[in-house]
Amino acid sequence: MSMPAVEPMNAVVLLSGGLDSATVLAMARQQGYACYCLSLDYGQRHRAELDAAARVAAALGARAHRVVKLDLAAFGGSALTDTSIAVPVDGIEPGIPVTYVPARNTILLSLALAWAEVLAARHIFFGANAVDYSGYPDCRGEFVSAFQHMANLATKAAVEGASLTVHAPIIELSKAEIIQRGTTLGVDYGLTVSCYQADAAGRACGACDSCRLRRAGFEAAGVTDPTHYR
Amino acid sequence: MSMPAVEPMNAVVLLSGGLDSATVLAMARQQGYACYCLSLDYGQRHRAELDAAARVAAALGARAHRVVKLDLAAFGGSALTDTSIAVPVDGIEPGIPVTYVPARNTILLSLALAWAEVLAARHIFFGANAVDYSGYPDCRGEFVSAFQHMANLATKAAVEGASLTVHAPIIELSKAEIIQRGTTLGVDYGLTVSCYQADAAGRACGACDSCRLRRAGFEAAGVTDPTHYR
Repeated sequence: MSMPAVEPMNAVVLLSGGLDSATVLAMARQQGYACYCLSLDYGQRHRAELDAAARVAAALGARAHRVVKLDLAAFGGSALTDTSIAVPVDGIEPGIPVTYVPARNTILLSLALAWAEVLAARHIFFGANAVDYSGYPDCRGEFVSAFQHMANLATKAAVEGASLTVHAPIIELSKAEIIQRGTTLGVDYGLTVSCYQADAAGRACGACDSCRLRRAGFEAAGVTDPTHYR
Repeated sequence: MSMPAVEPMNAVVLLSGGLDSATVLAMARQQGYACYCLSLDYGQRHRAELDAAARVAAALGARAHRVVKLDLAAFGGSALTDTSIAVPVDGIEPGIPVTYVPARNTILLSLALAWAEVLAARHIFFGANAVDYSGYPDCRGEFVSAFQHMANLATKAAVEGASLTVHAPIIELSKAEIIQRGTTLGVDYGLTVSCYQADAAGRACGACDSCRLRRAGFEAAGVTDPTHYR
């Protein structure tokens, strides 16, 4: 395949439109990376997050933002894509929640890997968080390491010796720490949408797990919550 | 996520519509697996292969066949999805060919992993071949092993101890050996399409790398070539 040599400061940033990945983008920008932001339209209920991702990419000076459409709902199995499963609004329960989307992060990272190869980028930024999402297997550091190892065997660039790094800079941070870090970097969290069932205007329900984690994070961080609740 | 217990004989089979994956499906069926076949509509030029996949799934008694649409052409970079890059027809050259699609097998396996999780399947069958496609990094055994390791850290089932196996039963076989194996199992290769630029009726060009490998395989196997050439 005809491709440019390694572009050392190109990075693919997975951008959901939520608070975590917006912070990761700000961190990558501060480190000087030329950021190519990738969002997945996977049939999620909370489509407003894709609009939020576009706003965040523009506000933080991304080089490009691309939305790839993939109908994960074809497989079913998650409250985020299967409308027959209700989004829980009664508080966070232990274990893996019904809002877990099967293999979502593996798929997201695979798509990032594909774009990284085309861009000759050797960096992927990924907003996984093992603290708030302790029930999600694909938010753990050992998963990220295993993906990186696999990715370094998967691509032409890897065959030619240019190693790829998967950065997960907020994986060990609490929500409050993430918000404090992003606030320092000038992230406007009013642009982001975290709610699992935001309305078309991006206004949050305030009751789902994601809203609860977000609101508690702003409180713990001592930062005014700019979320648009309905 | 609410899911059934492990279904030990459920398997997701990646089915391209070509010769290799048809053989893999026949092998999985012979071993008694209930096969859920997955094809990817990734914007490839040779759309006829998706029709072929449906025919092959039906002929070999698959439990289901699903086509997931994903626009890999959005990333560009391959002659199979980027119409500005010509498909080579002058013979096989050393190195990684322009028909290589960035991270395609990683993406395919990730989608198979997602469906496997929903089906409570612990087996994925994958028609990678390291012999004919020696220039493709993601067709090597060490890549398959690394993907399996990552997958076993990625999913809810893995967290709960049910390990997943990625089977690549033809990875070390020559094209002739694959054809002999499939012929023994009753695969009708006239249903399959391998050509990188097949016409809408599935007729092959006879000149691209894939056609050359296929034709040479039938000759070496001593099996009559049932390919529909135009």
